[in-house]
Amino acid sequence: MRYLLYYWPTIQGRGEFVRLALEEAGAEYVDVARRSGKGMGVPALLRFIEDEKLGDAPYAPPFLKTGKLIIGQTANILLYLGSRHDLAPRGETGRLWVNQLQLTVADFVTEVHDTHHPISSALYYRQQKAEARRRTKYFRTERIPKFLGYFEQILQRGGRGRYLAGNSLSYADLSVFQLIAGLRYAFPKAMKKQERDFPGLVNLHDRIAARPNIAAYLASKRRIAFNQDGIFRYYPELDG
Amino acid sequence: MRYLLYYWPTIQGRGEFVRLALEEAGAEYVDVARRSGKGMGVPALLRFIEDEKLGDAPYAPPFLKTGKLIIGQTANILLYLGSRHDLAPRGETGRLWVNQLQLTVADFVTEVHDTHHPISSALYYRQQKAEARRRTKYFRTERIPKFLGYFEQILQRGGRGRYLAGNSLSYADLSVFQLIAGLRYAFPKAMKKQERDFPGLVNLHDRIAARPNIAAYLASKRRIAFNQDGIFRYYPELDG
Repeated sequence: MRYLLYYWPTIQGRGEFVRLALEEAGAEYVDVARRSGKGMGVPALLRFIEDEKLGDAPYAPPFLKTGKLIIGQTANILLYLGSRHDLAPRGETGRLWVNQLQLTVADFVTEVHDTHHPISSALYYRQQKAEARRRTKYFRTERIPKFLGYFEQILQRGGRGRYLAGNSLSYADLSVFQLIAGLRYAFPKAMKKQERDFPGLVNLHDRIAARPNIAAYLASKRRIAFNQDGIFRYYPELDG
Repeated sequence: MRYLLYYWPTIQGRGEFVRLALEEAGAEYVDVARRSGKGMGVPALLRFIEDEKLGDAPYAPPFLKTGKLIIGQTANILLYLGSRHDLAPRGETGRLWVNQLQLTVADFVTEVHDTHHPISSALYYRQQKAEARRRTKYFRTERIPKFLGYFEQILQRGGRGRYLAGNSLSYADLSVFQLIAGLRYAFPKAMKKQERDFPGLVNLHDRIAARPNIAAYLASKRRIAFNQDGIFRYYPELDG
């Protein structure tokens, strides 16, 4: 099974949650917008977004193409990949549970994005700096503890074992790895203070980073470095 | 099959997308927080959110209980209900497509919420009025056209027929009905100007409203009126 992943070529962004799943699975995939040549590059991505005649166009990247199927929305792509690559439980209850966790990750990711863009994505950060500072204060002091506290509770309680959905890794674990990595990049001071409250998540992060496929990926050029264009951005003035 | 729906008792909010699906399906359900008595009311809802020992606690309402299964996250609940009540295609491709549409609805709903709460949900609207005004200007002029334009395109092109997923109603159609109704309540002036650009969606809204189960629901006391505590709020100063 060969996948075509369509996502912006210079950022981790929401595409990274899909990349991590594909890498952990050892799946064969092409990161289309990062390649050149026929059918590759950003134009190939834009073709799907801008073709007004397309009846099943995705709203935005990332989207995944496999055969004739085009799947959009990060959590939806992961729902699909999870069932095919043993990255989610087989039973319906378990699959719904992992999807639920992933949707909560997605909510949090939107809030991370809006720390630096609280007014509009059509404006630059410098055009909404005052609002960003105000929003991020609440993000650091209320939202990080609430969301990470939730995932920590899930990991620690209910006898769920070593991963968020029990004894086996799921794509939600890979996504929580990315949350911890991204928050450390964007809010190093805030995270240094708060990490002691989430020992389970920090440990989960480390275990994911050490998995052979993930470790190889993180060390490769396929992993785009965090930068100031992605969802997780480091602006010292937002770190408190 | 008897469902217990847990959602805040005085607003439509995100719970309304679930209510609409349950009502269209003619499913037997109890809107727990709106009832009194044993195991009912807001305390019954809070028990799930606040019990730190619960291993499969939902992050937030709405959540649905059926037997021992607790399902959280609106789109996840609808994924479950869709397959059981003929509110989504049977095949995997169709189910993923409807889930993808629903996740795009969810993204839009978050943006609607943030028009009046661009800084923090922990603050009152009056404490973030200036930022709300600035964010909502972009919401009205850029985000409404972009999201509704997307759904209009899906409805009109690609030979998809009368509904977003083809010739049969899905829960995504019910959700788009709710978007149109909510936007009309919150932004009457902006919508009056823009509606001519979305004739397919307006027509879809009217067809949904006229469906027997939905019409009966909308005329009943079970339908909470739009109000100033929900996601869709009417503040004249935000309507341009």
